[in-house]
Amino acid sequence: MTQTDPISAEDQDRHAAKMARKKAARDRMMETKTGEKGLIIVHTGPGKGKSSSGFGMIMRSIAHGMPCAVVQFIKGAWDTGERTLLTTHFTDICQFHAMGEGFTWETQDKSRDIAMAQAGWARAQDLIRDPAIRMVLLDEINIALRYGYLDAAEVVAFLQAEKPAMTHVVLTGRGAPDALIEAADLVTEMTQVKHPFRSGIKAQAGVEY
Amino acid sequence: MTQTDPISAEDQDRHAAKMARKKAARDRMMETKTGEKGLIIVHTGPGKGKSSSGFGMIMRSIAHGMPCAVVQFIKGAWDTGERTLLTTHFTDICQFHAMGEGFTWETQDKSRDIAMAQAGWARAQDLIRDPAIRMVLLDEINIALRYGYLDAAEVVAFLQAEKPAMTHVVLTGRGAPDALIEAADLVTEMTQVKHPFRSGIKAQAGVEY
Repeated sequence: MTQTDPISAEDQDRHAAKMARKKAARDRMMETKTGEKGLIIVHTGPGKGKSSSGFGMIMRSIAHGMPCAVVQFIKGAWDTGERTLLTTHFTDICQFHAMGEGFTWETQDKSRDIAMAQAGWARAQDLIRDPAIRMVLLDEINIALRYGYLDAAEVVAFLQAEKPAMTHVVLTGRGAPDALIEAADLVTEMTQVKHPFRSGIKAQAGVEY
Repeated sequence: MTQTDPISAEDQDRHAAKMARKKAARDRMMETKTGEKGLIIVHTGPGKGKSSSGFGMIMRSIAHGMPCAVVQFIKGAWDTGERTLLTTHFTDICQFHAMGEGFTWETQDKSRDIAMAQAGWARAQDLIRDPAIRMVLLDEINIALRYGYLDAAEVVAFLQAEKPAMTHVVLTGRGAPDALIEAADLVTEMTQVKHPFRSGIKAQAGVEY
């Protein structure tokens, strides 16, 4: 029997009473969650959804009228959906800066990769310092940190010292350094359970970019 | 020494050669990834990013001019950023259907929750069957499956039998049933590493909704 069968009045009442208790307990718990602050948010791990979730949060910010900004550290050369949308529809509320030229095995030029990462970080610092900007997405910055193109201790120290109290900063990319995870308020690891590349399916519009 | 120090010509050359080999190997691998197909995509797990990543993919679809649709199974009563944005900016390309009335401990009415879930699923079936719609996000449907308000075997059988070949269907929510994970092409589990609720921070605009 699935629960889609008709429900007895008794079951209905039992459910309502149980849910009322659950709601009361939850309300008491949520009453203790009154704070608001700008968060350091990290999306890491090998699974999908790190960048698309960051992009989703940027779109939520836009929806709430909160000025925001995106710095893309690695994917700059790509013609992504997020780039198209942000640079055609929402330039009044969201800045978009592509500061990468592709994966390091595509550029094959370490000095240039480092220079691009440093330029991206300089831009990111300006954006984060601006108190009018409420959310800054640093897309794939963890890759630049992992390769040592940026110094994790420096990034963490900047966020702790200079991020305005109400600004959210979202840092994505696999292999987030421990110091960043330690400093963050909200960390999600995306774990890959199943991926269609294994079945010979390529990256597709809407899903990957 | 961090890698942000100047790089010797020798190191530069070694890096370029190594990356050229990596690119060649990757290109060979990617040449085998030629297929395109509509995917069954599942975002599950207790971490953040399941819905925001689905929403990000919907925004990517919109950016690529691909008609799409969202059915929200649980959050219908909420005034979310995604709802605001989709119903004000993109009604020509993305349908938005809020088919929930909040968490089950808020409604406290099991029959009504079941009726809402079933109505949402009926709507979802129509949207998925429509070959003009390229991506359908079934937000929080996994919750309805987990409570037994919808039958997982029925949902999986429908997706396998009736989803057009090129349509992507994204199913979000914690506790995705095994049968759905088995049937899916792309499954990501969002794992919670750190959450600000633990520090007394409430749900905030842009981040959670």
